[in-house]
Amino acid sequence: MSEIKKIGVFTSGGDSPGMNAAIRAVVRSALYYNLEVVGIRRGYEGMILGEFIPMDRKSVGNIIQRGGTVLRTARSPEFRTKEGRQEAYKQLKAQNIDALVAIGGDGTFTGAKIFGEEFDFPILGLPGTIDNDLFGTDFTIGYDTSINNVVEAIDRIRDTAESHSRLFVVEVMGRDCGLIALRSGIGVGAESIFIPETKTDMEAVMHRLEIGRQDKMSKILIVAEGEGESGGAMEISEKLKKRFPHYDIRVSILGHIQRGGKPTCMDRVLASRLGVAAVESLMEGRRNEMVGLLNGKIAFTPFDHAIKHHVEINKDLFKIVDILSL
Amino acid sequence: MSEIKKIGVFTSGGDSPGMNAAIRAVVRSALYYNLEVVGIRRGYEGMILGEFIPMDRKSVGNIIQRGGTVLRTARSPEFRTKEGRQEAYKQLKAQNIDALVAIGGDGTFTGAKIFGEEFDFPILGLPGTIDNDLFGTDFTIGYDTSINNVVEAIDRIRDTAESHSRLFVVEVMGRDCGLIALRSGIGVGAESIFIPETKTDMEAVMHRLEIGRQDKMSKILIVAEGEGESGGAMEISEKLKKRFPHYDIRVSILGHIQRGGKPTCMDRVLASRLGVAAVESLMEGRRNEMVGLLNGKIAFTPFDHAIKHHVEINKDLFKIVDILSL
Amino acid sequence: MSEIKKIGVFTSGGDSPGMNAAIRAVVRSALYYNLEVVGIRRGYEGMILGEFIPMDRKSVGNIIQRGGTVLRTARSPEFRTKEGRQEAYKQLKAQNIDALVAIGGDGTFTGAKIFGEEFDFPILGLPGTIDNDLFGTDFTIGYDTSINNVVEAIDRIRDTAESHSRLFVVEVMGRDCGLIALRSGIGVGAESIFIPETKTDMEAVMHRLEIGRQDKMSKILIVAEGEGESGGAMEISEKLKKRFPHYDIRVSILGHIQRGGKPTCMDRVLASRLGVAAVESLMEGRRNEMVGLLNGKIAFTPFDHAIKHHVEINKDLFKIVDILSL
Amino acid sequence: MSEIKKIGVFTSGGDSPGMNAAIRAVVRSALYYNLEVVGIRRGYEGMILGEFIPMDRKSVGNIIQRGGTVLRTARSPEFRTKEGRQEAYKQLKAQNIDALVAIGGDGTFTGAKIFGEEFDFPILGLPGTIDNDLFGTDFTIGYDTSINNVVEAIDRIRDTAESHSRLFVVEVMGRDCGLIALRSGIGVGAESIFIPETKTDMEAVMHRLEIGRQDKMSKILIVAEGEGESGGAMEISEKLKKRFPHYDIRVSILGHIQRGGKPTCMDRVLASRLGVAAVESLMEGRRNEMVGLLNGKIAFTPFDHAIKHHVEINKDLFKIVDILSL
Repeated sequence: MSEIKKIGVFTSGGDSPGMNAAIRAVVRSALYYNLEVVGIRRGYEGMILGEFIPMDRKSVGNIIQRGGTVLRTARSPEFRTKEGRQEAYKQLKAQNIDALVAIGGDGTFTGAKIFGEEFDFPILGLPGTIDNDLFGTDFTIGYDTSINNVVEAIDRIRDTAESHSRLFVVEVMGRDCGLIALRSGIGVGAESIFIPETKTDMEAVMHRLEIGRQDKMSKILIVAEGEGESGGAMEISEKLKKRFPHYDIRVSILGHIQRGGKPTCMDRVLASRLGVAAVESLMEGRRNEMVGLLNGKIAFTPFDHAIKHHVEINKDLFKIVDILSL
Repeated sequence: MSEIKKIGVFTSGGDSPGMNAAIRAVVRSALYYNLEVVGIRRGYEGMILGEFIPMDRKSVGNIIQRGGTVLRTARSPEFRTKEGRQEAYKQLKAQNIDALVAIGGDGTFTGAKIFGEEFDFPILGLPGTIDNDLFGTDFTIGYDTSINNVVEAIDRIRDTAESHSRLFVVEVMGRDCGLIALRSGIGVGAESIFIPETKTDMEAVMHRLEIGRQDKMSKILIVAEGEGESGGAMEISEKLKKRFPHYDIRVSILGHIQRGGKPTCMDRVLASRLGVAAVESLMEGRRNEMVGLLNGKIAFTPFDHAIKHHVEINKDLFKIVDILSL
Repeated sequence: MSEIKKIGVFTSGGDSPGMNAAIRAVVRSALYYNLEVVGIRRGYEGMILGEFIPMDRKSVGNIIQRGGTVLRTARSPEFRTKEGRQEAYKQLKAQNIDALVAIGGDGTFTGAKIFGEEFDFPILGLPGTIDNDLFGTDFTIGYDTSINNVVEAIDRIRDTAESHSRLFVVEVMGRDCGLIALRSGIGVGAESIFIPETKTDMEAVMHRLEIGRQDKMSKILIVAEGEGESGGAMEISEKLKKRFPHYDIRVSILGHIQRGGKPTCMDRVLASRLGVAAVESLMEGRRNEMVGLLNGKIAFTPFDHAIKHHVEINKDLFKIVDILSL
Repeated sequence: MSEIKKIGVFTSGGDSPGMNAAIRAVVRSALYYNLEVVGIRRGYEGMILGEFIPMDRKSVGNIIQRGGTVLRTARSPEFRTKEGRQEAYKQLKAQNIDALVAIGGDGTFTGAKIFGEEFDFPILGLPGTIDNDLFGTDFTIGYDTSINNVVEAIDRIRDTAESHSRLFVVEVMGRDCGLIALRSGIGVGAESIFIPETKTDMEAVMHRLEIGRQDKMSKILIVAEGEGESGGAMEISEKLKKRFPHYDIRVSILGHIQRGGKPTCMDRVLASRLGVAAVESLMEGRRNEMVGLLNGKIAFTPFDHAIKHHVEINKDLFKIVDILSL
């Protein structure tokens, strides 16, 4: 295959903490191996519009600790069209970019797969999303930070809940995936956790709350935002208020604070390892795969595998919630 | 007047970070001056029900760093009635408690004033509330921590806003008072701040956003929760979405994370100084006043003064928002 | 084997963040399975002296977020003697404790193994140490929090280093083990990392610093405290000062801030999973093993295996340091 | 006087958190009032070498939350000489800079005063230093953040101290000034605080420790780095070890983590208010003064007054340490 001389790197989809560390790793690795490297602003949208920015060692100095992404991100309806992708390809060729590293989630990889096959273009992906729902990596870049953001926020809520003997229903991110809710729920000693993957027995939840009420102590219920069955945080709190009219019940929607802020050490190290591996692997001729870390080792998973397979929820984790909150 | 021998201390109203540091200061000061000291759980409610807990040096060991209040707090409709207060007085007498330190906000002081006058009972108050709306103290215990909680949360939101070029409308606490919104707004470089005390010119806000849009950069608007004029965070965001259909606009309701968590150094020191002063002042015969810190010096303000006077919003601070966000 | 009815739990060796979450998990699991559970203060020392404290659900309420250990820890020279252990055994029998969960590191497990064999006493261990140097678990309870503590501290140092174009030599914990230095070093973009497991080429380090000096930018060198070859942080900084007299070089010994503070989500979840598994496994008849998590699954490793085998340093991680700091 | 058209801004001396917020405020205010504004890198050194960088709105976008200073800082022996200052003046004139805002501490103001008088050059100063030892402002920019950094670090040390019943002697910054030690000492419930301004009675300290030892609880002693009388943290710990051979005593030198990291809300707001005031005041013709905040109001103090007068230590604060730690 042709030798890689110039790599383009971009971030796409929802931002996640650690994306900057990944960009830095890709840029510094490329320079280490004497390749040129170009940053593409605002994901596929910027690729189509030709928003390229040359990157050197200094461009990524000190961004390892910063949340968000310095290359920005954006939705791109145009990239879903053949014309849009054709334009993107033209722009890349005009820049002599001969390989891409795409940092994002399932939406990003869907586009990458199509583009890579359409134009026979070498492209590897790094799992940059807070959702941890990609197959082929134990953790995605940003997941560890976001569960810690949730835990920090709920530690604060716990203080006020304890002071007032309140029950808080807290909604966390996780559109189709309850992993953030589950892990952070264990981390804060939540009473119950509602996630999309399982049907929660509302009666059992009510019953346990009834027993626990004598204590007059605080209680935290976690609800993943994509959880539709029981109706989301607001509806769940309404049902609880009806059943327990004398219980002080509040709702907290954590929202976007979950995404931002400094990445944790694990996210920085993961991003760094994957970024280096991506560049080395492109040089070795790999393409159309997501680079991940499985059991501590670098692993490659074809894009469609990474997206299509659901990550199994660990049933043991659920049992732990029950045991530890009784 | 009779010599004080046994002090009761309690927290009441919404919890605020630093209340524990204040409890600790009252308890340790009382012991230092060879007085007995008793904690009363759950505010006036607990006083009526006789929920007393003897306090010693160890009871308050290491609570200086903890958010919330170890003595809890609760609403007390009963205390608003003469019978309720009569019962409370009986309970205090049964315990030989001859003076009280009440840590809370305006609701707490309203009750304290009535009770203190009704039974000729020595009671002093410490300003424990995140709202900073009490007259007679530059800062209330908990205000500094909450504005920092807001700033930390919005620093995170800023990361994701920057990555997506989004506009965020963030609602912060401050039922009748825009002080949290104002100070934290300056601290995060907010575009505009909507508070109850002033009427915000929505047209001017729209206009400035229009000018700024070319940049495609992030923007933060802060809305105090009690701000009714423009309709609260949700309504404001709706108006903005109508005017700027292509602008990515999100809402974030910070909620209860603002109250909790470790108190800042300032709140710990303020709570400590006021706690010591309260005990010393009760011993000197002072009563029916809030102990505060004005211009770095301990100051005493009769309860009704502390509550009734509105804290002036510093117009200069508003001008700074405009200057620095252009 | 005899049925377990009453479990004793203790923490021993250096404290590590997450120990409280582990204690909580052991206590709540025991209660869930209708066993009695007793806390033993101050490790083996307290066992000998009979410092037992009955534990119930409330004893461990809200300790999941707290650093340190509520059961304390202490050195115990007496436990190294046969008489001391005999006394400990007597105390356990007097309490009808028929199984133990020991939370600590290699020192703890050494004592546990000897005791367990000597008295045919069921005892399982949880890896509570910041060093991550136990065989049989990917991570120890406390490791993730301490590398994040290091990263936070160095993020701060980086701000001041950048402002002054300084070189900082930072010493981190890790008596025999460079894992904290290595991971946190990647996480902060360190120039070089000195660890006990490898011999660092001082000349190469000097050379790279020379090249980088033109930039006038900040540099961070990480030194694990047990690193003897190059002389520790102080000596290394002296050598650098001799070679680069015009370079502003400072030393920072991070010390004990690395151990404390709130455990991260990962440490809380790990501690919770292992605590539950320990109780369930004691009930199933397992003994004399450390319970760990390997590749996401609960794993059991005999005590001596857990201690004696060195954890291999991942050479890839070292290469990453070089690539990303050039 | 001549109308100001172009302002130069720089940071000098030790960096302090909030300097970036101050730079931002100066730049944005200048632009708001239609002045040009230029950043000068690396303080007086950069002024002499002509290291100017034009600043616009975007230059300071999002730096309000960042520690350190984007304009860097450096020592300048040359500026102490008449030739050096002559060269600096030449450079300013070549750039048509007609006024300066100097952000720093006493060293910075000493140079500013001399320069301003020598060349009749309008220059105002902002108090950017963690030491809070300038006369004319209740707080300096960076003081609040550094005492919070200290408090956070010691909260961590407290966890490990509690677990092991240890005594920690912690050294904090404050070369000539014990204010950081005093306020943070109260904030962490320290036993004793050693500062340069007062002579600490070592015997009394030893005596109180003796009484407290039965508890076997943790103790924290704070020592300001400039405290020479008792010998600094190391010497103090040696004396204590001799007196209490069975007491587990450790030393922690906090070092440079105290300076860095995100500024608190107070420091950001202070920096913003003073930055705006500096520009407005230069336009009104003020010069050779430090702009500060006293009792919530903008205040102007001639440079030599700001430096020469010692800030009185508040004796009450000392008494509080004793009362609350008994």
